[in-house]
Amino acid sequence: MDLVSENRAHGGVQQVVSHVSKTCGVPMTFGIYLPPQAEDGPVPVLWYLSGLTCTHENAMTKGGFQQHAAELGFAVVFPDTSPRGEGVADDDAYDLGQGAGFYVNATCDPWAPHYRMYDYIVDELPALIEAEFPVSGPAGITGHSMGGHGALTIALRNPDRYASVSAFAPIANPTMSDWGRKQLHAYLGADESAWCCWDASVLLEEHGWKSDILIDQGTSDQFLDLLRPEALASVIAGRRQPGEIRMQAGYDHSYFFVSSFSGDHARWHAERFQTSNGAGRAHA
Amino acid sequence: MDLVSENRAHGGVQQVVSHVSKTCGVPMTFGIYLPPQAEDGPVPVLWYLSGLTCTHENAMTKGGFQQHAAELGFAVVFPDTSPRGEGVADDDAYDLGQGAGFYVNATCDPWAPHYRMYDYIVDELPALIEAEFPVSGPAGITGHSMGGHGALTIALRNPDRYASVSAFAPIANPTMSDWGRKQLHAYLGADESAWCCWDASVLLEEHGWKSDILIDQGTSDQFLDLLRPEALASVIAGRRQPGEIRMQAGYDHSYFFVSSFSGDHARWHAERFQTSNGAGRAHA
Repeated sequence: MDLVSENRAHGGVQQVVSHVSKTCGVPMTFGIYLPPQAEDGPVPVLWYLSGLTCTHENAMTKGGFQQHAAELGFAVVFPDTSPRGEGVADDDAYDLGQGAGFYVNATCDPWAPHYRMYDYIVDELPALIEAEFPVSGPAGITGHSMGGHGALTIALRNPDRYASVSAFAPIANPTMSDWGRKQLHAYLGADESAWCCWDASVLLEEHGWKSDILIDQGTSDQFLDLLRPEALASVIAGRRQPGEIRMQAGYDHSYFFVSSFSGDHARWHAERFQTSNGAGRAHA
Repeated sequence: MDLVSENRAHGGVQQVVSHVSKTCGVPMTFGIYLPPQAEDGPVPVLWYLSGLTCTHENAMTKGGFQQHAAELGFAVVFPDTSPRGEGVADDDAYDLGQGAGFYVNATCDPWAPHYRMYDYIVDELPALIEAEFPVSGPAGITGHSMGGHGALTIALRNPDRYASVSAFAPIANPTMSDWGRKQLHAYLGADESAWCCWDASVLLEEHGWKSDILIDQGTSDQFLDLLRPEALASVIAGRRQPGEIRMQAGYDHSYFFVSSFSGDHARWHAERFQTSNGAGRAHA
């Protein structure tokens, strides 16, 4: 594990770390923000999964989460969105290959050898974080766009691992969208029956979620037709699933949208960490 | 005037605008954030001047000012740091030429034709902003690094124009620093007597400032020797100038530092807008 950079921020510390991922078979880079409370003992953690074309850095510098994490007393992890580097398959399109891992375990070549972002986010990276950083207790997960898809599908498949889940403008129904069908076909093959366990709307319809869900979606998002929030909204309402889908007037798909609501999501997760934890550590 | 982009943010709107600058003789681009309060009438404005290598965009996406401006009810303008484009002189060094205008009016070739950032920031752009946007009343000015130098020197030379001034890690004494001597020599010539009116420590020693000043400086700033906060601190203390120089333990020169304290600076300016304005509009 190598410390790439370290910056004091809001009384805590923003680190960028690289490590050799066994899961992905290449070096991976992630950001982790440790709030001031982490100096006194372990804190809960919020996972933030980023969208297409992003690295660990975009949300770390533009999302505005650190201020709120420092106030509320939890860490934030910003993973990369795919394996990268020489020897890692890629595609000329911005929405396939490097920067576009879609948080799945690829089963088809040329992607299968390295594109295992699901296992990386669910298993390898949490184990590393808990072993090496003052982080323990409840975990929440959120993300933006492709990362919102990642957050929802990962939480829905692992309800015991996450106390809370939210999303910003998630790709909500990838099996029915050009942001999804192309990538699921490439990574998983032509058999669509293998795709459904990577679709938040399908998963929620089948399994529900143990508590409530928070979704923010801008009404002026230039990618609304690809995101398909109506599919998720229909499932949430149809299943009587507790949660909120907030259609935010005038907001688009940018980080100006994410940073406008990162405070709301931070407080929402912190409240659920407290409930989950029972000890009020989020405000220690 | 062309609207380059527009994003809703924190209930207001972040615009990027380009216009042909008569002062600089080329098209210039700036960002302006209008808080929700601007829908009901003119609001005060905070000018944020950026540092070396930056465009209008860096602080606009990483500084975290919009959240606070929306809460407090003022606009924020993010100008570019130099003229740019073909026909505009440049240098291979990152700290001279395009991206490094130093907020002076150049008098020497090849810089003199376009490098007139002082007049642009003090006269042309404020006139445009007041004419075209719902902005009026008190103005504050702040900035980071080279932009902190710009904010301080511009305020000190124009006390009637600005109600308040602050800075983040300013180049505090450029006539005595390699961040300054090289550029002042290039832009203004070898006669050092022409340099002094572009040095915040010299100007403050000569003229003082009508009210108080807020300076934040990280103790782990990698450029401390070039910034020379000790010169400004000595003048402030020596003149009994009201103000605060806060040496912030462990912070460096990055936007993580700026965004950690942008809320403090926003509130500090808003308080002075209220005093200046008499009408409490900042909390309308």
